Amino acid sequence: MDKEIMAYLSKNRKAHLNELFQFLSKESISALPDYKQKVQETAQWTAEALKNAGMENVKVYATEGHPVVYGDYLHAEGKPTVLVYGHYDVQPVDPLHLWQSPPFSPEIRSDKIFARGASDDKGQVFMHIKAVEAILKTMEELPVNMKFCIEGEEEIGSPNLPVFVKNNTDLLQADVIVISDTSMMEKGKPTICYGLRGLCGLQINVKGPKGDLHSGLFGGAVQNPITALVSILSSFHNENGEITVEGFYDKVESLTMDEKNAYEALDLKDDIFIKQTGVPSLFGEKGYSTLERMWVRPTLEINGINGGFQGEGIKTVIPSEASAKITCRLVPNQDPDEIISLLQAHIQKQIPVGVDVSIQLFDKGAPFVTPFDHPAIQAAGRSYEKVYHVPTSYTRGGGSVPIVAVFDQFLELPIVLMGFGLPDENFHAPNEHFHLENYDKGLQTICTYWYELAHTLS
Amino acid sequence: MDKEIMAYLSKNRKAHLNELFQFLSKESISALPDYKQKVQETAQWTAEALKNAGMENVKVYATEGHPVVYGDYLHAEGKPTVLVYGHYDVQPVDPLHLWQSPPFSPEIRSDKIFARGASDDKGQVFMHIKAVEAILKTMEELPVNMKFCIEGEEEIGSPNLPVFVKNNTDLLQADVIVISDTSMMEKGKPTICYGLRGLCGLQINVKGPKGDLHSGLFGGAVQNPITALVSILSSFHNENGEITVEGFYDKVESLTMDEKNAYEALDLKDDIFIKQTGVPSLFGEKGYSTLERMWVRPTLEINGINGGFQGEGIKTVIPSEASAKITCRLVPNQDPDEIISLLQAHIQKQIPVGVDVSIQLFDKGAPFVTPFDHPAIQAAGRSYEKVYHVPTSYTRGGGSVPIVAVFDQFLELPIVLMGFGLPDENFHAPNEHFHLENYDKGLQTICTYWYELAHTLS
Repeated sequence: MDKEIMAYLSKNRKAHLNELFQFLSKESISALPDYKQKVQETAQWTAEALKNAGMENVKVYATEGHPVVYGDYLHAEGKPTVLVYGHYDVQPVDPLHLWQSPPFSPEIRSDKIFARGASDDKGQVFMHIKAVEAILKTMEELPVNMKFCIEGEEEIGSPNLPVFVKNNTDLLQADVIVISDTSMMEKGKPTICYGLRGLCGLQINVKGPKGDLHSGLFGGAVQNPITALVSILSSFHNENGEITVEGFYDKVESLTMDEKNAYEALDLKDDIFIKQTGVPSLFGEKGYSTLERMWVRPTLEINGINGGFQGEGIKTVIPSEASAKITCRLVPNQDPDEIISLLQAHIQKQIPVGVDVSIQLFDKGAPFVTPFDHPAIQAAGRSYEKVYHVPTSYTRGGGSVPIVAVFDQFLELPIVLMGFGLPDENFHAPNEHFHLENYDKGLQTICTYWYELAHTLS
Repeated sequence: MDKEIMAYLSKNRKAHLNELFQFLSKESISALPDYKQKVQETAQWTAEALKNAGMENVKVYATEGHPVVYGDYLHAEGKPTVLVYGHYDVQPVDPLHLWQSPPFSPEIRSDKIFARGASDDKGQVFMHIKAVEAILKTMEELPVNMKFCIEGEEEIGSPNLPVFVKNNTDLLQADVIVISDTSMMEKGKPTICYGLRGLCGLQINVKGPKGDLHSGLFGGAVQNPITALVSILSSFHNENGEITVEGFYDKVESLTMDEKNAYEALDLKDDIFIKQTGVPSLFGEKGYSTLERMWVRPTLEINGINGGFQGEGIKTVIPSEASAKITCRLVPNQDPDEIISLLQAHIQKQIPVGVDVSIQLFDKGAPFVTPFDHPAIQAAGRSYEKVYHVPTSYTRGGGSVPIVAVFDQFLELPIVLMGFGLPDENFHAPNEHFHLENYDKGLQTICTYWYELAHTLS
């Protein structure tokens, strides 16, 4: 990266932080109807910030809910186009009394910025805006074409973004999507997450007698709905932790040797996860390492189960009904709809005599992976390394970010998750904060990345 | 039964019913501390009623809780001694607004007495007292020796009766125990229940991670406590509904041919139970009829299960813990302590990797059966038939009456459950009532029984 850019960032650091504090002081809580106007104002603020940085065609797009802010810069002829996605909305702040400083009065303590949204995601969105500003002010042009899509409903599950993306595929078309809304593995360890698992799930409702029965009077005569449910649920795994649903693993991609090596390089020992979770020992699908099981293997979890008497002591009932919620984490190339069908077929085969079973489906999301060796991924890795001076970690995430699946579905672009947060920065919790070290280095990394990309993808 | 006794009962019917209404108007709710004094007054009233009927050595015995009322008549030399057990306490009356007439203001509607305790158990205790009075007033002596043991804590699980019985085995010694606190099968169908199942149970607590985990981040790395619990619970039965706990059935007595015939004579078709319970079809241990499964075969039921997210929709957690409550109904000669040990051993063998399991034990009670062909049982059957003019039904009960197990354990006497209630008389619920038909016929049956017993057991 050019020294002039670095000098500009350094010289303007204080002014930039003041500006970020303005952004962070805006109470853009998307979940609470009373804050609708504040969310709207924050969208306007974001649009102004994009304009001031030098972005063009800046517009606040209304949706059925909170607006989407768009802006672009399309003067880098022959160069790739980057779509930057982020969000300007934040989580609610309850419980307020646990905050050491008010959530919307940002302050710096121990080299961290404390405020709601500091890391998730205003801080990271702001860095992208300031990177544009720094390059344009010093170099007069950007090395790539850029589009910003900053939404206001990420914290409530992006209910209106899919429609927006679907209706604006031309506007949003690009060569790569960059999202800075994830965390590095740990302090000083820059990380690129190049894949996420998908999700699908359902609730199983078992209905037996019309009302709870006395287990003395009727025990032995009827099927117990809990026993029936337990028998269905226990049929999903074998003792090796493998999922026994027919066809479940059929389309699962196997890991490349490069990826295996990348995970081994992370040097994440099982002890770390035992300590993090507090389990007596780890457990999972036989034949795979813990990281593989968390990132590249699908799972089937029972998230909740409920039936019969829940109080202290004993009540000798045969309950009228019982239910359980299950979700699967999916990996490329599993299709959520196909997996749901396989689960339903499996359940149908397992229904015991004497009960009725019904199924409710939950929302689903597809898994995504950008090939590990994709030039955009490797360029991102090099950019981190140039700034942090340590090797970049390549990971996949076990969780699901539904919006990533939306972009994957409608734009079919490589997606780079270039996060600068840290796992313990309390996003969604009191005392959310963001490390200034990653603010500074992150800004440099982003600027560096645009030049790397211009070089790599051209 | 002598015509003079019948005439006496007939002549004094109105006075007796007035007296019963006094008894029923006493608010002897044993569960509520505020009613302690009322319970005490009801014990005194019961003692007075016994004295007035002609019983001797009447005494109100204090216990750690509510008192026990005792009285005897021991002048029938060479004749058997009968111990009559009953209780003068009643269930709470909530929800009060569902009562058509106040619970402690007895009234007769459609030939039924409506009041809390009308059938459970003041009405039936009162009949025994008036049977004594009628015989003594007309015949001057009782055909058998009699002892009354009427307690005030049955509705709260008789916490102090075991100690009372254990400390007074000489006082309570007899040749047969008669309890009128159960129901006939249906109107016009006198019924003797000559056996009850026992009960033992435990709670299984499964503990995995120290807190709930995000199923995306950690799914695949750890054992899910619900999955572990479900795997333990599903191991208790096979697909034939048989319990697979090693040794569980070892001591179970098989049914005699006489008993099989008696059950067949009841002509209780499966359709009846399907209608009563509302299940799509009945289910249970292969190779046994529905009645056998309910009365003479042991069961293992999951009474409650709990773990993870319980709300609407989906929350993708791996819960920290899960638990289930299970109880077994036991039959002669299963020993509750032995069965608990077998269950614990079974569970230990089933614990999956990656979780800790703890067990909490619940109260237990032994099963009981008085041999079907015991003279006291057969004499009771004949007494019903002389009054009701239909064949007596012989049943066993699937439920457990802990106090019966206490008498069985400390006194080792044949027990006759001679009930006059009906299954739909709302005991424990609003609008409890008692049919006058069974009040009248029951009084005659009791008087008849004492003469039959004097003849049979002498």
